[in-house]
Amino acid sequence: MALRPSRLITAALASVSILASACTADAGDTDDSTNTLSRRRTPTGEDIGKVSPGLQQYANNVVVEGLWSRPGLSPRDRSVVTVSALIARNNTVEMPQQITAALDHGVEPRELSEIITHLAFYSGWGNAMSAVAITNDIYTERGIATTQLATPARQPLPLDEAAEARRADTVEQDFGTVSPGVVQYTTDVLFRDLWLRPELAPRDRSLVTVSALVASGQVAQIPFHLGRAMDNGLTQEEAGEALTQLAFYAGWPSVFSALPVAREVFAGRP
Amino acid sequence: MALRPSRLITAALASVSILASACTADAGDTDDSTNTLSRRRTPTGEDIGKVSPGLQQYANNVVVEGLWSRPGLSPRDRSVVTVSALIARNNTVEMPQQITAALDHGVEPRELSEIITHLAFYSGWGNAMSAVAITNDIYTERGIATTQLATPARQPLPLDEAAEARRADTVEQDFGTVSPGVVQYTTDVLFRDLWLRPELAPRDRSLVTVSALVASGQVAQIPFHLGRAMDNGLTQEEAGEALTQLAFYAGWPSVFSALPVAREVFAGRP
Amino acid sequence: MALRPSRLITAALASVSILASACTADAGDTDDSTNTLSRRRTPTGEDIGKVSPGLQQYANNVVVEGLWSRPGLSPRDRSVVTVSALIARNNTVEMPQQITAALDHGVEPRELSEIITHLAFYSGWGNAMSAVAITNDIYTERGIATTQLATPARQPLPLDEAAEARRADTVEQDFGTVSPGVVQYTTDVLFRDLWLRPELAPRDRSLVTVSALVASGQVAQIPFHLGRAMDNGLTQEEAGEALTQLAFYAGWPSVFSALPVAREVFAGRP
Repeated sequence: MALRPSRLITAALASVSILASACTADAGDTDDSTNTLSRRRTPTGEDIGKVSPGLQQYANNVVVEGLWSRPGLSPRDRSVVTVSALIARNNTVEMPQQITAALDHGVEPRELSEIITHLAFYSGWGNAMSAVAITNDIYTERGIATTQLATPARQPLPLDEAAEARRADTVEQDFGTVSPGVVQYTTDVLFRDLWLRPELAPRDRSLVTVSALVASGQVAQIPFHLGRAMDNGLTQEEAGEALTQLAFYAGWPSVFSALPVAREVFAGRP
Repeated sequence: MALRPSRLITAALASVSILASACTADAGDTDDSTNTLSRRRTPTGEDIGKVSPGLQQYANNVVVEGLWSRPGLSPRDRSVVTVSALIARNNTVEMPQQITAALDHGVEPRELSEIITHLAFYSGWGNAMSAVAITNDIYTERGIATTQLATPARQPLPLDEAAEARRADTVEQDFGTVSPGVVQYTTDVLFRDLWLRPELAPRDRSLVTVSALVASGQVAQIPFHLGRAMDNGLTQEEAGEALTQLAFYAGWPSVFSALPVAREVFAGRP
Repeated sequence: MALRPSRLITAALASVSILASACTADAGDTDDSTNTLSRRRTPTGEDIGKVSPGLQQYANNVVVEGLWSRPGLSPRDRSVVTVSALIARNNTVEMPQQITAALDHGVEPRELSEIITHLAFYSGWGNAMSAVAITNDIYTERGIATTQLATPARQPLPLDEAAEARRADTVEQDFGTVSPGVVQYTTDVLFRDLWLRPELAPRDRSLVTVSALVASGQVAQIPFHLGRAMDNGLTQEEAGEALTQLAFYAGWPSVFSALPVAREVFAGRP
């Protein structure tokens, strides 16, 4: 039953044509666009080759056989980073394959749903709606029911009241008169609600946030959230590998703009 | 006939499933893709709930019942901000619902069309074309004809010649030899033509511009245009509420990168 | 046989309805979404006019008759800039028309395919996949086979070993411990492989890169790549005209954020 990671990745990513076909099989049977939210499929390796044989070779040799098999970050975590980057960049064409791969790599449906929920706030509502449309189809096809999406015990995670009070004070002093609404929602909805939801571990929630920030070029917001990610248990090696993953899925320039900031954050850690 | 604002918003946003169905009814009847430009629909509350019950709750409790009902900015202005952010971010999946809601909130078809025209220049031609495709379908469905899209008296708005001469001089000195084409078009097409079109009030045109800048992370361009927006009549309270609206539709990081700049602009006002 | 440039551009861009129809004719005949990757078409001038008569006038008078006919940058190079900007911004609705126009303007299929390959790294894998989906359909429709996509002699271009060693040393010193993976792939896959592929001239590859950087707001990465572009033969006049083209296809704010950086690069040239 247990595939070695490299086999698992190959099965999930190299055989994209099988995945992609499965992914749109139901959708393709009818044209009832009032029932189906998305009907796109991700290009297969063969599709890529018809447009660029060179890109197909990079896909096989560098991405599937190389990047996804690197040590330092698990395939499951690479999927968390990749899906977050695609949602942040609204890359809907690549999403069907990578959301499917994420489930195959062990991201629980509950976690995937919470990544989308989290990014509704950190990447914008419209980006989340694109991901909802695609994920809705994949859940229908896989028979994933709403009962699988909540944690059994829905207790909010514990809050470090002192640290949260300091954060809230700083933001209130900085921007309380500029936009009282933003300041209020940041406390009430984000830090005293969203971040305490047990559907996603804080370390993973931070990894999602940092990935989205890098992928959308929001360099100024990286120091706070990368520091928080490391407080939540992300290691420097994992962060460096997340940046490697992001070089491919968010593009080299996004990562090169983030590297000097990451270096400062790493240097400032005790 | 007159609904209270909160009822209007609830009708327009909470009953998204009705809107969304109506929105694609004609499109869904045929598969003639040479006649239909877009056939997407925005996920309904029920669709969201199948992917994330938590996100559906946020949609109902925080966004529809909360954000859209806040004082400080009218539902009509919130729609102007939201549609501008979606066009700037190319959020095509959320667009059908929000463009429909904008018309229900009192944004005139003439104004909506001019928002798209304005953003062809301020968010790029390709972003405008995505909005054209979706709006074309909505206008067809609602029977909105071209005759509704122009102001009766097509006189250009008055121009402050002295202020425009100062702006043009500064840009010419800064960038006249770097890109003569950009400098020339900025004067001829933007400030002596587009900004003088009477289809949209200058205050609204500025609100569209600032929303697009925040939503696309163009922080360096905010000071000029936020100052101009306030010269054109946007109050500080409205600007702060626009940022609150944008936190949801452009994502928290975009707004937190804009807040320090907005604070400086507010502090520098007489 | 030979059309004057302005006629060629008019044929390729003003008669978008003919192009667009051709572009989706095969796709529209069936609804087999497992065989078809994209079925979008770009709005025609008539479509634009139904949403905004003003925007249709700008399309005809300013863009088609104006911008595309300007001296200083060939229609072929304008297409290279435009397609790069659309891929970097994931503007899938405008892509079918502009990819078709690029081929009509003399961008070879081999070059177009290599632009997509290059941008898989410089604009992110997901952006490239959107372009693959659309280009795949256009190649099928035009009968462009894989044999047309490789150069006859597949020798890598010569490398300036000393300059590359300096670049690699700097990046290793700056970020070698921050993200060893990024540093390694930057050398092995980008500068010792991708940039040496003969399918695209280095000057064009640089033009693609700079266009994508401007179009995605990656200002911090412009100095290195604009300098490299000029080392590779791009003139200052061409760079200034590329910025003019980008003002329309990436939006005014992206270009105004790039102008101060371009000025510095120009001032620093010998």
